[in-house]
Amino acid sequence: MTKKVEVPKAKGHFADRLVAAIKAKKNPVCVGLDPRLKSIPEFIKARYIAQYGETLAAAANAILEFNKGIIDSVCDLVPIVKPQIAFYEQYGFSGFWAFEETCKYAQSKGLLVIADAKRNDIGSTAEGYANAFLGEVELFNGKVPSLDVDAITVNPYLGYDGIKPFNEVCRKYGKGIFVLLKTSNPSSGDLQDQVLDEKVNEGFGSKGRMTNYELMAHLIESWGAEDVGESGYGFMGVVVGATYPAQAQVIRKLLPTAIFLVPGYGAQGGGAADVKPCFNKDGLGAIVNSSRGITFAYQAEKYAGLYQPEAYAEAARAATLEMIEDLKGVA
Amino acid sequence: MTKKVEVPKAKGHFADRLVAAIKAKKNPVCVGLDPRLKSIPEFIKARYIAQYGETLAAAANAILEFNKGIIDSVCDLVPIVKPQIAFYEQYGFSGFWAFEETCKYAQSKGLLVIADAKRNDIGSTAEGYANAFLGEVELFNGKVPSLDVDAITVNPYLGYDGIKPFNEVCRKYGKGIFVLLKTSNPSSGDLQDQVLDEKVNEGFGSKGRMTNYELMAHLIESWGAEDVGESGYGFMGVVVGATYPAQAQVIRKLLPTAIFLVPGYGAQGGGAADVKPCFNKDGLGAIVNSSRGITFAYQAEKYAGLYQPEAYAEAARAATLEMIEDLKGVA
Repeated sequence: MTKKVEVPKAKGHFADRLVAAIKAKKNPVCVGLDPRLKSIPEFIKARYIAQYGETLAAAANAILEFNKGIIDSVCDLVPIVKPQIAFYEQYGFSGFWAFEETCKYAQSKGLLVIADAKRNDIGSTAEGYANAFLGEVELFNGKVPSLDVDAITVNPYLGYDGIKPFNEVCRKYGKGIFVLLKTSNPSSGDLQDQVLDEKVNEGFGSKGRMTNYELMAHLIESWGAEDVGESGYGFMGVVVGATYPAQAQVIRKLLPTAIFLVPGYGAQGGGAADVKPCFNKDGLGAIVNSSRGITFAYQAEKYAGLYQPEAYAEAARAATLEMIEDLKGVA
Repeated sequence: MTKKVEVPKAKGHFADRLVAAIKAKKNPVCVGLDPRLKSIPEFIKARYIAQYGETLAAAANAILEFNKGIIDSVCDLVPIVKPQIAFYEQYGFSGFWAFEETCKYAQSKGLLVIADAKRNDIGSTAEGYANAFLGEVELFNGKVPSLDVDAITVNPYLGYDGIKPFNEVCRKYGKGIFVLLKTSNPSSGDLQDQVLDEKVNEGFGSKGRMTNYELMAHLIESWGAEDVGESGYGFMGVVVGATYPAQAQVIRKLLPTAIFLVPGYGAQGGGAADVKPCFNKDGLGAIVNSSRGITFAYQAEKYAGLYQPEAYAEAARAATLEMIEDLKGVA
C-alpha cells in the first residue's frame, strides 16, 4: 500500500561522526533543548493560542517554533544538541510530536542529536526502545525508520541485559549511547558512590575497594567500550556530571576511549575548570551540555535589559559564544 | 479561551485503592499490555490498513483496538493493568496516543493503571515526568490533568533526587510509584547483587556485608516507604522479579509495608512457588504481572487449536482465570 521503505545505510561509526563535528565546529558544546512553556516568549505562545486555543497542541506548536529559533541561531556554532524528552512528554502525544519534529529539524540543520531519555529495560522491551530512538520499527510489512536520532542516554541499573539491545542497534545503524555513570545531582552518591567489598575489585584483577561508579566503568568497558572507530573513541559514551571533577578524573582513566556527556555546567554550578578532567590530552573525549543557560539566556540576569523576548534566539547565540570561549582553555 | 479545568481531587492513598481492588477482585493479578504488532490478529490490522494505509497511525489504531478487547475481557477479573510504554513509543507520537487512550480506557472500565515507563531524572526534569504521568501539567493559564495514571515505575540509579519529585506528586494526587529494586532479568546482578563494604551496613546501624539491592531497600525505606495508608501499605512500591525468590524473601523482611510489583511470572520462567516469598502473611503485599502469557494466549502452544484469532480476548480471559487459579495457594 505504502511504498517499501529502504533500510537506511549505516552512517559510519557514531564516535567518528561526533569527533568530526567537534573538530569542524572547534568546540565541544552541546545545547540542551529543554523547553519550559512559562519561559517561552508570549509572542510565540499567543500565535498558537489564537490558532488552537489553550490546548496541549498549542503548547506543542509553541515549543517547536521556539526550538527552531534556537536551532537556527546556534546550528553553525555547535556540533550537537540534546532535547530532554520529559519536557515534551508532559504535553502528551502532541508533546511527543514536538519532540520528533525538533529532532528532525536539528538534523536537517546538520546537527547531531542525543535524545536524553534515560531509557532502561530488558529483552524485547529494550529492543523496542532501541528501535524507537535509533533504529527501525517493524511495521506491517517490513521495517521503517524510527525517530532516527544519533544517540540516546540509557540507565544501567538493570545490568548488561539493559544495554546489549542498544549496542546491537548502535552497531547496525552507526548510532551511540551514553550510559549514566556519575550523575551531576547532589544525591547521585546514594548508590553511585557506595564502596564495594574488596572481593569485587579482585574479580576485575585489581586490589583495594572501589565504588559503584567505578564498578560501572569497569562493566561498561567489558560491555563494548573497546569498540572504537577510526577516531579512537567508542560508540558507548558515559554521563559524568561537571559537579564531580574528582570522580571524572578517576573515570577518565578507567574509560580512556569513552566520550563523556557532561551535564551540570552553568545552571547546576559547574565551570570550565570542573569539566577539564573530563577531557583527554588530545582535547577530545567530552561534550559539555548547557540547557537553560543558553535557551533562556534572554531572561538571564547577566543580560538584563539587553534582549527583548523577540531576540531570544540572538541571546542564545551570545550565550553559546560565551560558553565556547569559556571552554577554550580546557578543550 | 478553554474553560478552566478543575484541579482533580486527591483520590485517596494509592496503596489503599490498590489493596481495595485486590480484595474486591480476590486476586493480585496484573495484566501487562505490551502489544506486538506481529501478534495482533490480521482482521484487526486489515481494518486500519484499509483506513490509513501501512502507516504508524494504522499500527497505533490496531494496537488500541486490540487492547480494548483485552481490557473488556479481563476488567471484571483483575485489579490492575500495566502497559509498557516502549511498545507504544516505537510508533512515534501515534503510538504515544495509543498509550494514552489505552490507559484512559482501562480506567474507564474500573481498572487501576501502572505506566511501566521506568522513568528517571532529577530536579525539574523528574518533576516533568511526575507531572506528565501522575499529576497535572502547567499549561498557559493554570494546570490541566496529565496522563493521570495511578502509578509509574521508576529507576533509582540517580538516588533520592530522582525519587523525591515523584513522591511529592504521589502525596498530592493519591498516586504510587514502583521503584526498580531486584529486576527479573538474568544480568540484574551485574550491579544489584554486588556486595558492599561492611562500613555501608554500619551506616544503617547493622553489621555484616549487604548487597546493592539490600542497600536500595534501606534507602527506599528512608525515602518514604513508611508513608502508609489505612491498609498498612505504602505508596512507594518496589519491583522484584519472580525469578529471584530468595532475594524476594530478604526484601520482604526489609520492606514489610511496600507493595511488590512482580514481573517474570510465566513467559520469563517464574511460577506460583517463586512469587510466594513476595507476599506477606496477610496474603497481600504483591501484584504479579503477566503480559504475553495473557494477551497473546490465543497463539500459545498449550491452547493450540482452541482459539481462532477472532477469539483472542476469550483466550486472554481463559489464561487470566488460569493464572488466578494458579496463584490461589500463595496469595
